[in-house]
Amino acid sequence: MFDHPLDPIFYPRSVALVGVSSNPSAGWGGGGFHQAILEMGFNPEAVYPVNPKMEEISGLKCYPTLLDTPDPVDHVISLVPAQVVPSLIDQCVAKRVRSLHLFTAGFSETGDERMAAMEQDTVAKLRAAGIRVIGPNCMGLYVPGSGLAFSRGFPKEPGNVFLLSQSGANASQIISSLARRGVRFSKAVSFGNGADLKAHDFFDYAASDPQTEVVIAYIEGIQDGRAMVETVKRCARQKPTIILKGGLSAAGARAANSHTASLAGSRQVFEALCRQAGAMRAETMNDLLDLTVAITTSAKDIRGRGVALVGGPGGFAVLSSDAIAAEGLDIPPMPEAAKRGLRQFIPVAGTSVNNPIDAHLRTRQQFEDGMRIIAGADGIDVVLSTSFGPGGWIGENEAEQAAGEGPGNRVELNAAAAVELLVNLQDETRVPFVVVQRDSGFEGARGFAYQTAAYQRGIAVFPDVARAARSIRLTLEWRGRREGLPDIF
Amino acid sequence: MFDHPLDPIFYPRSVALVGVSSNPSAGWGGGGFHQAILEMGFNPEAVYPVNPKMEEISGLKCYPTLLDTPDPVDHVISLVPAQVVPSLIDQCVAKRVRSLHLFTAGFSETGDERMAAMEQDTVAKLRAAGIRVIGPNCMGLYVPGSGLAFSRGFPKEPGNVFLLSQSGANASQIISSLARRGVRFSKAVSFGNGADLKAHDFFDYAASDPQTEVVIAYIEGIQDGRAMVETVKRCARQKPTIILKGGLSAAGARAANSHTASLAGSRQVFEALCRQAGAMRAETMNDLLDLTVAITTSAKDIRGRGVALVGGPGGFAVLSSDAIAAEGLDIPPMPEAAKRGLRQFIPVAGTSVNNPIDAHLRTRQQFEDGMRIIAGADGIDVVLSTSFGPGGWIGENEAEQAAGEGPGNRVELNAAAAVELLVNLQDETRVPFVVVQRDSGFEGARGFAYQTAAYQRGIAVFPDVARAARSIRLTLEWRGRREGLPDIF
Repeated sequence: MFDHPLDPIFYPRSVALVGVSSNPSAGWGGGGFHQAILEMGFNPEAVYPVNPKMEEISGLKCYPTLLDTPDPVDHVISLVPAQVVPSLIDQCVAKRVRSLHLFTAGFSETGDERMAAMEQDTVAKLRAAGIRVIGPNCMGLYVPGSGLAFSRGFPKEPGNVFLLSQSGANASQIISSLARRGVRFSKAVSFGNGADLKAHDFFDYAASDPQTEVVIAYIEGIQDGRAMVETVKRCARQKPTIILKGGLSAAGARAANSHTASLAGSRQVFEALCRQAGAMRAETMNDLLDLTVAITTSAKDIRGRGVALVGGPGGFAVLSSDAIAAEGLDIPPMPEAAKRGLRQFIPVAGTSVNNPIDAHLRTRQQFEDGMRIIAGADGIDVVLSTSFGPGGWIGENEAEQAAGEGPGNRVELNAAAAVELLVNLQDETRVPFVVVQRDSGFEGARGFAYQTAAYQRGIAVFPDVARAARSIRLTLEWRGRREGLPDIF
Repeated sequence: MFDHPLDPIFYPRSVALVGVSSNPSAGWGGGGFHQAILEMGFNPEAVYPVNPKMEEISGLKCYPTLLDTPDPVDHVISLVPAQVVPSLIDQCVAKRVRSLHLFTAGFSETGDERMAAMEQDTVAKLRAAGIRVIGPNCMGLYVPGSGLAFSRGFPKEPGNVFLLSQSGANASQIISSLARRGVRFSKAVSFGNGADLKAHDFFDYAASDPQTEVVIAYIEGIQDGRAMVETVKRCARQKPTIILKGGLSAAGARAANSHTASLAGSRQVFEALCRQAGAMRAETMNDLLDLTVAITTSAKDIRGRGVALVGGPGGFAVLSSDAIAAEGLDIPPMPEAAKRGLRQFIPVAGTSVNNPIDAHLRTRQQFEDGMRIIAGADGIDVVLSTSFGPGGWIGENEAEQAAGEGPGNRVELNAAAAVELLVNLQDETRVPFVVVQRDSGFEGARGFAYQTAAYQRGIAVFPDVARAARSIRLTLEWRGRREGLPDIF
């Protein structure tokens, strides 16, 4: 039934939450685990809250100790204080659980030698009994297909992206931010101090997980250098792998040490690892988010540096051109034939057909005809559009025809129609289209509806031109560095 | 009455809008000028719409030609097509107006020699009659004190920042974005092609304008190099002056040329200008916005590179530290005495007192005591806090005491109370405080209420740590480059 030794961890049939609290904000999110799991669709009859002081929580029977819960318990989430962990270990062994997630913090990351020793001791005892440990000091598992989650509001639908993160807060931010942009996850794991299961274990798992096509990671330390190099190599060889490393500065390293007891290692070592393995290196959180979008959309298919920038107004186009050039991309002038073609329906005053194209493509027909000419021009590898279509025009007429819908629905219909037009143009011209949703357009319900619709059809959306250009550049450079490695797509 | 030759342009007593349209979106914003002016509080009896096809617009009598309007007309806004401009010129001369704003586009920026000649001819005729011209191809004036505006929704209250911008769209974006962050303007002018009044004229004006304390600019071309150097020098000597230059790349220069007929000039020339003049150079739109906030708040008083970063959670603190270090700023470890002080009320598990300080300062007293220790520590030049106070706690209790208020009011009361606490700490410790409002917190009504409250009390708020750190670094570097120039503050 299980192909990989870690499969049982990601597919538990029952979960016990030890030290569960009715206060949803107890211990930074620790109070909300049972609700998150229930909302994600875990079988409520196999969720066992454990707290001697409560009879019931959220409609579930509460058990005084782990030993009192029904058999079997596959997965235990520890929400108890660190001092209580030793007695919990004995119960886990007696109960023959498969895995323990220590949300519990206060171990090696405190810098206290006694607590670091207790962490080692805990892992040794559990490993001897065949029990694997996630953590301590982490949020644990989000596996939509298994009904596991560590926060409420994560998407229920599974996807193709595997996230591993030492930080729980960063994991939450990555999941929430990417979910709004349309990305869905096969599995995510926040593993904190990594006392037992470490980054390389999860890279190894992600490499062979059939549900995972793309692997993204936030790490603070490299705990076993050789194993890390080998697993990242194996992973990145087969699947796009994007890594953000925290603690590359002295102060960041100090923070990482007190956060997850990580020894951060040098920038050079990390860069060499990514280079040798063919992994993509994210320098910032925005990089990690943007590259994940780029690598799972048609933006990954951009083959050269020629950008057609479509969309005004003028001063915005000027600064956008500078931002694109700053990333080393080109904005080649339109060939004469293309300019003549565009001039047929673009008025002279206040417009430009010479790339950047400050085009007033006011109707659907103009938008289609114009984009066809632009995408087909020599030297154009990607069309970067600052709108989804000709103003608010396109979807709205079509949405009007669909009767009886509310305003939310209408936005979605508009978005779907606008995206359909871009997808058709992309299919026809075989040049990738990328959209920049300016300013406040990127946030808010309307923006998310467009981003999700676009992403679902494989079109990347970025919040500004600079981030779009940077993502294109980093993806191109990554592809260049992969020479000699298998073509992933 | 007028001190500067350009004063009459900024303080007209009457305005005629020639070619006014009832379609608010006619000609990109051209239809909305009269509404913008009326909303800004211009005397409606001195607003004269001119359109032979209309009797009335927005409750104002419409006149068939400029010559039919009452006397005097100080300022004319031309919304007619370029071909109609020659006959409008004659009427302006006959009517003895003081200034003409040519919203009208389609002149030299088209690259058409005939239209470039018409632009020159237009300016020559008007100048001969003593009439100054703003534009063509621009949005013109926003002067809250005079009741002038070119878009609806700009703040009615005047402020201390003068904006000059060749691009109308960028002017709108700068005004809207900064207004949301609390900044207010003495005057703003979008001057497009600058056929008559050019950047150096407005720098000269801003330098001597008593309402103006800070000057910010978006320019695309340097039309008169010597005058530009002299006026920017004079301006930057007396007032903080921030310049964003578009068209520094080849493609950006091409876009600038078709946008405002600007010849963009080289990066080196522009950098040398800023360096010699003691002006701040903004590399991006975000720089221009952020530096304006920095230079008009206590962030301008930061005297060194030592940053105390306060606020978790852990993974966010790690990446934030890296972002701060990437800007060349320091995050010095807390001295032992400060750490001991903080440990008195900060729990061990999941926290750090060693800068970055991932502090759980849960009560008002803890927040005050903690911040006092942090700001007072050796080597700390600025406290960068990722929250406005101890969680949601601070303002809310105080707001509860204020009876009968609605939700909007409550947010404002919370914001005011939170900001008050920071201001008091800043006054007491004499170390500037800067706030980062993460993610979605920066946008939306709640975010704006906090930003405005903070800004009004002189506290800078940035949307992320990287932008805060960059603004601090650029401000420090600018101060360093000003050696030999007068202390502005």
